[in-house]
Amino acid sequence: MRELLRVAMVGNGFMGAAHSQGWRVAPRFFDLPVQPSMDVLVGRNPQSVQAAAEKWGWRESSTDWREVVERDDIDVVDIVTPGDSHAEIAIAALEAGKHVLCEKPLANSSAEAEGMTRVAEAAAERGIRSMLGFTYRRVPATAFARRLIADGRIGEVRHVRASYLQDWLIDPASPMTWRLQKDRAGSGALGDIGAHAVDLAEYMTGLQLGRVSGVLETFVRQRPIGGSSSGAIAAASSGTPSAEYGEVTVDDVAFFHGRFDSGALGTFEASRMATGRKNALRVEVSGSTGAIAFDLEDLNALEFYDATDAAGEQGFRKIIVTEPEHPWVSAWWPAGHMLGYEHGFANQAKDFVDAIAAGQSPSPSFADGLHVQRVLDAVERSSEGDGAWVEVVGGEG
Amino acid sequence: MRELLRVAMVGNGFMGAAHSQGWRVAPRFFDLPVQPSMDVLVGRNPQSVQAAAEKWGWRESSTDWREVVERDDIDVVDIVTPGDSHAEIAIAALEAGKHVLCEKPLANSSAEAEGMTRVAEAAAERGIRSMLGFTYRRVPATAFARRLIADGRIGEVRHVRASYLQDWLIDPASPMTWRLQKDRAGSGALGDIGAHAVDLAEYMTGLQLGRVSGVLETFVRQRPIGGSSSGAIAAASSGTPSAEYGEVTVDDVAFFHGRFDSGALGTFEASRMATGRKNALRVEVSGSTGAIAFDLEDLNALEFYDATDAAGEQGFRKIIVTEPEHPWVSAWWPAGHMLGYEHGFANQAKDFVDAIAAGQSPSPSFADGLHVQRVLDAVERSSEGDGAWVEVVGGEG
Amino acid sequence: MRELLRVAMVGNGFMGAAHSQGWRVAPRFFDLPVQPSMDVLVGRNPQSVQAAAEKWGWRESSTDWREVVERDDIDVVDIVTPGDSHAEIAIAALEAGKHVLCEKPLANSSAEAEGMTRVAEAAAERGIRSMLGFTYRRVPATAFARRLIADGRIGEVRHVRASYLQDWLIDPASPMTWRLQKDRAGSGALGDIGAHAVDLAEYMTGLQLGRVSGVLETFVRQRPIGGSSSGAIAAASSGTPSAEYGEVTVDDVAFFHGRFDSGALGTFEASRMATGRKNALRVEVSGSTGAIAFDLEDLNALEFYDATDAAGEQGFRKIIVTEPEHPWVSAWWPAGHMLGYEHGFANQAKDFVDAIAAGQSPSPSFADGLHVQRVLDAVERSSEGDGAWVEVVGGEG
Amino acid sequence: MRELLRVAMVGNGFMGAAHSQGWRVAPRFFDLPVQPSMDVLVGRNPQSVQAAAEKWGWRESSTDWREVVERDDIDVVDIVTPGDSHAEIAIAALEAGKHVLCEKPLANSSAEAEGMTRVAEAAAERGIRSMLGFTYRRVPATAFARRLIADGRIGEVRHVRASYLQDWLIDPASPMTWRLQKDRAGSGALGDIGAHAVDLAEYMTGLQLGRVSGVLETFVRQRPIGGSSSGAIAAASSGTPSAEYGEVTVDDVAFFHGRFDSGALGTFEASRMATGRKNALRVEVSGSTGAIAFDLEDLNALEFYDATDAAGEQGFRKIIVTEPEHPWVSAWWPAGHMLGYEHGFANQAKDFVDAIAAGQSPSPSFADGLHVQRVLDAVERSSEGDGAWVEVVGGEG
Repeated sequence: MRELLRVAMVGNGFMGAAHSQGWRVAPRFFDLPVQPSMDVLVGRNPQSVQAAAEKWGWRESSTDWREVVERDDIDVVDIVTPGDSHAEIAIAALEAGKHVLCEKPLANSSAEAEGMTRVAEAAAERGIRSMLGFTYRRVPATAFARRLIADGRIGEVRHVRASYLQDWLIDPASPMTWRLQKDRAGSGALGDIGAHAVDLAEYMTGLQLGRVSGVLETFVRQRPIGGSSSGAIAAASSGTPSAEYGEVTVDDVAFFHGRFDSGALGTFEASRMATGRKNALRVEVSGSTGAIAFDLEDLNALEFYDATDAAGEQGFRKIIVTEPEHPWVSAWWPAGHMLGYEHGFANQAKDFVDAIAAGQSPSPSFADGLHVQRVLDAVERSSEGDGAWVEVVGGEG
Repeated sequence: MRELLRVAMVGNGFMGAAHSQGWRVAPRFFDLPVQPSMDVLVGRNPQSVQAAAEKWGWRESSTDWREVVERDDIDVVDIVTPGDSHAEIAIAALEAGKHVLCEKPLANSSAEAEGMTRVAEAAAERGIRSMLGFTYRRVPATAFARRLIADGRIGEVRHVRASYLQDWLIDPASPMTWRLQKDRAGSGALGDIGAHAVDLAEYMTGLQLGRVSGVLETFVRQRPIGGSSSGAIAAASSGTPSAEYGEVTVDDVAFFHGRFDSGALGTFEASRMATGRKNALRVEVSGSTGAIAFDLEDLNALEFYDATDAAGEQGFRKIIVTEPEHPWVSAWWPAGHMLGYEHGFANQAKDFVDAIAAGQSPSPSFADGLHVQRVLDAVERSSEGDGAWVEVVGGEG
Repeated sequence: MRELLRVAMVGNGFMGAAHSQGWRVAPRFFDLPVQPSMDVLVGRNPQSVQAAAEKWGWRESSTDWREVVERDDIDVVDIVTPGDSHAEIAIAALEAGKHVLCEKPLANSSAEAEGMTRVAEAAAERGIRSMLGFTYRRVPATAFARRLIADGRIGEVRHVRASYLQDWLIDPASPMTWRLQKDRAGSGALGDIGAHAVDLAEYMTGLQLGRVSGVLETFVRQRPIGGSSSGAIAAASSGTPSAEYGEVTVDDVAFFHGRFDSGALGTFEASRMATGRKNALRVEVSGSTGAIAFDLEDLNALEFYDATDAAGEQGFRKIIVTEPEHPWVSAWWPAGHMLGYEHGFANQAKDFVDAIAAGQSPSPSFADGLHVQRVLDAVERSSEGDGAWVEVVGGEG
Repeated sequence: MRELLRVAMVGNGFMGAAHSQGWRVAPRFFDLPVQPSMDVLVGRNPQSVQAAAEKWGWRESSTDWREVVERDDIDVVDIVTPGDSHAEIAIAALEAGKHVLCEKPLANSSAEAEGMTRVAEAAAERGIRSMLGFTYRRVPATAFARRLIADGRIGEVRHVRASYLQDWLIDPASPMTWRLQKDRAGSGALGDIGAHAVDLAEYMTGLQLGRVSGVLETFVRQRPIGGSSSGAIAAASSGTPSAEYGEVTVDDVAFFHGRFDSGALGTFEASRMATGRKNALRVEVSGSTGAIAFDLEDLNALEFYDATDAAGEQGFRKIIVTEPEHPWVSAWWPAGHMLGYEHGFANQAKDFVDAIAAGQSPSPSFADGLHVQRVLDAVERSSEGDGAWVEVVGGEG
């Protein structure tokens, strides 16, 4: 009988469903050294957390995360709450000796993120592991891209074009939510999806941003309170009177440039107003002897251009990343059988469990999350200033 | 506490993994009227079936399907063995009063399929449900295509172009397997993947094939016995001596034309020799006022052409089929978050459970599978003859 | 001063505009050994042919092709009339010692085509050149595809998937034209566009069809006479009364299979009812070590799959065929600057002039056109019969 | 007999070939009110200009542009020399009463461009017309995009993503040319291709940039002198010793953000180092009710997303812009027959001739060119500073 790794998860929103699927499915496909066990689900509302626990298959539920993270029969704390509570929970869990998987963003501010990172690094010395949930690193195509670039297949990286485009805010009648309030969400498109673009660009290239210059913008500054979230454009003209409006205090759009430590340049775009784009996280890396292009809306594919192919025969090659040679794939389905959004969560759970069992530090670390947080902070400072270049604090890391 | 639906699954190969994932995941996303319970996994080899049961999360394992299908504490029998044993198991299970989900093909011959269909129809009168696993009907894009066509959005269907292209046999050094032996596999590309093309074309259009004309071909007629399945082309030239060769007795390729009962025409292609195509099941339906195109290699998308759009503004519209308006999607992830191959199995499990609970006949039925079998038989007869048109038996049904 | 090659062109319809552009432009980009001179345009109607001559830049016009093809000051006769007059004009011109470029189809019947081929072959012995206008052989991507295949880059060809899809007849209110009458047009989709699919598949692979099996269909059998050709679908329902209907006597759609002399298989589709497809001539060739895919709607690209690339790195590579290494391209624009439909006519004019100057037989020959005609005849015979395989006459040639 | 418009063209490089094709072909497809006549080609080297005149079909050649622009028998001067001579020639021609078509960039500096614009505006009052050659405005898809946006089909424009990506400089062994020297070329990627991205974004949206913030970079700062231009990457490693290196004084890459006068935001990228991208000018416009995307590498297509389509049926619609409803297309080929790079030059010639005959000011004007020059200047100033936002001079215009 294999040893158990007893997991408690704090948070029961959309990300809770995704992480639950990761814990549920990983052991059914991968051969794990220890067996994760979905023990406790923690949420604020007793009814809804109990319902979620039953639905998602957690053994018990709780409304008291403080009590849970102290329990002796818990080995891992998985944090999927909104970003403003990450620091408190993660620090408590680490100090209680639990391994921590924390969903991104690491925190809503660099100050919090710094504290978490210090605690995580101290915990690591006691064998306590921590990992940040930049799940798109666990899409086989992005990990394969990193491998190709690390192997020198595109030569020296010159520039990176990264964008994460969504369109769920295009309708001005779409209502206010906590995601549009700075005090709760930290930031808007920048922190929510721009963070992914930054992390993925750095992950794929192995480079780190040192300076940024950018602009944030909010196109729709007031939104109806209490409206239905469906708010179709067609309905907008039907004149439903919405008595009250709330102030949108985060960015709809963040555009910025970045200079990597190697001297390479990057352009970054994050938008919730990119009409027609649903979840288009794209990264294109141009190197001296090749290029790589990835698009999350076609996540099983990777485009690879090899400039050392014979003249006249060069072209972007669409590799369907479902072969046994590709990361994680041999555990899944035969070639040509597509993976989806949630497989990243199972791959992530596998790698986290492996690292714990092997006594190694998983990646991305809290320090990686802190770095991304600092990049985003620098973008905000640049935008609040006159758009000039701003150093990423600690960039020399 | 919800009522349980106690499932036994017979077979522990690749399809067993896929069906297990369906049973495992469906209740975690959908609100099911009764709760499926993964009770018994049945296989031939006691060690491997026990390992699989543990891995996949079945409570117990068995090597005796006859005993299992008779057990009082089993409600559903899910059959994922090779096609030559479907008839025997399904008939026994239905006669024992179990609901049956049978993976395609229904059987390796029309005679067997007829017997199964008769038993299933008799069982239905006693409230026993049976369903065939043409899982690609449960991809949201194909079900949405069916809805658009049924709603008249492309007008009268004139022709259908369906192909299922793979390339895993292109290397002549790729070894013999049971899938290449007619006595075990029934047929080659025709039955394995051509069957999907036929069913999906009929499902999407709501039409049925009445006559066919076609050709089967085997390009590589001998393959090494006992070779490794990796058999890369590169390795082929390395001169590994393979002492023995076996005879390939099924088709590598099946090309055929079909006439639907409405008068519409279809072209069908199934190939395991379509170099570079991994799992390319494509169906394009051309109607009098529009068209639909689907490609399994881009399974979250549906192309829709509306010929009633203004002149100059018409074009194939790539709908990303991940909106709450699309079939099954509201249970999964937000818009733009991609589904994969296996989601069809969860959607299928949901629909089967729903039908059982509602006392309704699920679809596709065994009769649907029999019909596809008869189409394939007719293609074989046409190919064995001179390629002339052959009636699909029972097509008037 | 370079020697002149004095051209007379017979026919002033759409194809006349295309061939005129070829003659006009070729000498401005290519270095030709002799200079084509656009001397006489011949048409039936004196006013319209004179207007066309002035518009297109021909020195003079005439309504008497017989007189023109006898003139001593004409070296080349370019025939762009409908197919039913090709034989008479071409034979007269060849016998008068003129080099002949004849637009496809060579003729409306094999009998005529045979006569033309005999005359052309006799003329060749006297140094008189003849060439058939299968212009899609002069798209750089198709010629490059032929070169790759001839160089063995995809290994042994196993199957070919060729289709030519258009949709200009989907609206039943679209009016009768001579193209829909068998006595004038010879055939419908089969001869008009299916011919291109056959020729291009044979050209790219270097193979020849020996047997075919197929079906022709006419979905809209009556069309209004004298209606406007715009006939939008939207308008169809507006109830414009059209007093009279004419009988459509050609095929809307032709689907057929073909066996090449090498044993390779082909599927062919020609349709004027493929809703949403405007000019989609596609050929995909699957070989034992690679594949090639071409699409005329993206004519500057060629997809190439190399199955000898490293495992995990294989994929269809989209080559933009605008590099100096590609056929004809160095005479045109820099890399990445796209060519269009008409460039094939200039490339064709260049090759025809080169062949004349070099005293060599240009390609495709009339014999090539005769062969395609025989393939189409065989498809018609198969369709008129029961769809069984029919030998292509003279296929052993 | 129609009146002639007698053209002299100054410059016989690559752009001379493109403009010649425009003058040559336009009257053969369009019905022009006056007939352009290709009278004099002017170049520096007597042998090469005479050869080019003969090749391209100009009646005579000259090496003295000053003499030619004064000739009474010349109506139009077409300037296709490098940018540093545009001002002198254009001003002389306008003052001599000639209509002027000037290839972009208008000039190498804003100061020169201002002078030209003043002279052009004064000339316009005397009925002398001037036009700038931003030819990509004459691609049917871009003009159709402008029409859709102007018609409100995408609502209010929120952001624009424009990039022009090429890769001809990726190889460090690729040699020095005048295009890489600031004193001759003015700037690098910014002025050469970034200018097109700016103009096209403004043209399609009808908006004008008021402020910019950006960065220029030169990745390869020294290049071999006198090397062959083919410089393949593969050859680079072969160690051919190149004695001397020259300094690259222009940008390889320019990335910038722009604020339009409406408040909309733009991101702009110009690169000659975007490995694998040959001529990828792309503009995506996101509006409140729709979106438009164009890609010059697929120039016959336009992607259009209509957010007022029914929920669940929205998607980017690929319009093949070859229908008679599309700008200029009715003069060319039937639907589905593709146009290429050079058709923009014929469309441009047509519009210029039409404007002259109608006594109207053609578009784009020199003032438009001046504005783009000022945008580029502002980008350079931003990059030379600290990347902060810089006003576009005269932006309030």
